[in-house]
Amino acid sequence: MQNWKLTLTYDGTNYYGWQVQPGLPTIQGELQAAIQRVLSRSWGEAPLPQGSGRTDAGVHALGQVASFELGAPIPPENLQRALNRTLPDAIRVLESRTVPAAFHARHSALAKTYEYRIYRGQLCSPFLAPYVHPCRWPLDFDAMRDAASSVVGEHDFLSLAASDPDITLRSEEGPNGDSESVANANTPARSTIRTIFSSEWTESPGDLLTYRVRGNGFLHHMVRNLVGTMLEIGRGQFPAGSMPTILAARSRSAAGPTAPARGLFLHSVEYPDDSLI
Amino acid sequence: MQNWKLTLTYDGTNYYGWQVQPGLPTIQGELQAAIQRVLSRSWGEAPLPQGSGRTDAGVHALGQVASFELGAPIPPENLQRALNRTLPDAIRVLESRTVPAAFHARHSALAKTYEYRIYRGQLCSPFLAPYVHPCRWPLDFDAMRDAASSVVGEHDFLSLAASDPDITLRSEEGPNGDSESVANANTPARSTIRTIFSSEWTESPGDLLTYRVRGNGFLHHMVRNLVGTMLEIGRGQFPAGSMPTILAARSRSAAGPTAPARGLFLHSVEYPDDSLI
Repeated sequence: MQNWKLTLTYDGTNYYGWQVQPGLPTIQGELQAAIQRVLSRSWGEAPLPQGSGRTDAGVHALGQVASFELGAPIPPENLQRALNRTLPDAIRVLESRTVPAAFHARHSALAKTYEYRIYRGQLCSPFLAPYVHPCRWPLDFDAMRDAASSVVGEHDFLSLAASDPDITLRSEEGPNGDSESVANANTPARSTIRTIFSSEWTESPGDLLTYRVRGNGFLHHMVRNLVGTMLEIGRGQFPAGSMPTILAARSRSAAGPTAPARGLFLHSVEYPDDSLI
Repeated sequence: MQNWKLTLTYDGTNYYGWQVQPGLPTIQGELQAAIQRVLSRSWGEAPLPQGSGRTDAGVHALGQVASFELGAPIPPENLQRALNRTLPDAIRVLESRTVPAAFHARHSALAKTYEYRIYRGQLCSPFLAPYVHPCRWPLDFDAMRDAASSVVGEHDFLSLAASDPDITLRSEEGPNGDSESVANANTPARSTIRTIFSSEWTESPGDLLTYRVRGNGFLHHMVRNLVGTMLEIGRGQFPAGSMPTILAARSRSAAGPTAPARGLFLHSVEYPDDSLI
């Protein structure tokens, strides 16, 4: 068996998220079906590719990573080309490579970066609309920058986790608290503690505000809840400087609403050097 | 009654073209439904907005124009705002204004500009895919530029019209040959003669080739057939310099295939100054 790593980009608009669901179009399902079409029948059923984490319905990816094992001997660049020939245009394989057997897209991840895009203009182009959250309220940008920087470091992010307890504690995106985790089997299960390495807002041309956050893992809905909370701070619904209090509350009701999926992009996933995998 | 002019942009990906069709999502149908929702019931049934021309399924618009009459007294900027509140995100009203009674989006048009976008890169981003035609063959760009310039001027474009005779001669996009035409009522009906004011290819950043053509009118499929023919010239299937011969043949079979809809944008429509309408 050969272990494979794929780097993927996708437009999540028309998909029910990453995770395979019976009868619904999902990224994982499309990818598995494409692998099946590429393999000759003699190699049996295609494996279910494992993602670095699940993305929700409507969330996009610039650099999602998936891993799976194949028995069929395929040259690395051929797999990329063959998959891109059969995948829908909305999903592209940016890179395919063989990796050591120990590599796992989720368990081996050291850091992830997400981006969230907000449109500030009067009239959002139809060509931009599926990729931004339009927000025209006046915003205190300094207060939002301050809120963003105050989440850097190790914190308990329970206040910013999805309110459904099953989902909150599923914790599929972090190395901590993942009961299936191999690399971190001795960390406490179901932890809501994560480390954020960087967190900042930037203004871009075309009336865009972009939030970029990099961390060792994210709880379900954590980035969208962070953005929703920072927007409440920006428009004065929560006081400037209140992010530390919101985190300390360890309660979902202390934070702001979940920002819409369509503005969110999984930007990239980082792994140890090949020699360390 | 007040006559209205709307300027519209839309992402045509998920629509069955401009023209209303029973049971199918179309731009004209969505716009009529939005006008209906904006009008109070006492003003009766919403008018069917008339476009400057029909765009096919999957074709986009940066500046389509529509006109219609309303009995309801509405301030111009309010109509834009009210329509944008109720239209799908894929359709936006860029401008709404009242115009003299004689104005008609199709009959009053003096010129139209279309753009066609071709992607030359190895791997087309999912975020670009619905708006370009990927073409990776080596292309003789000089021969394509030459072919583009050779259509400038007044020509019979029968070779580049849709092959279905009903559709070819429907001629809905040109001032000539339109039996409903007011402004040009004394020009011969069903003419396939059009005047092209400019026609050129440019290379843009990001592996894009863009064709832009401006003329007094276009036959059905004419821009897509022009592009399909120029691509055949570019890849050497037709000889360099053959465009005049292709036009002279006055036969659809002399030209190349119809390029896909998704690369085509109706860029803008020009009208006389308000004083002349």
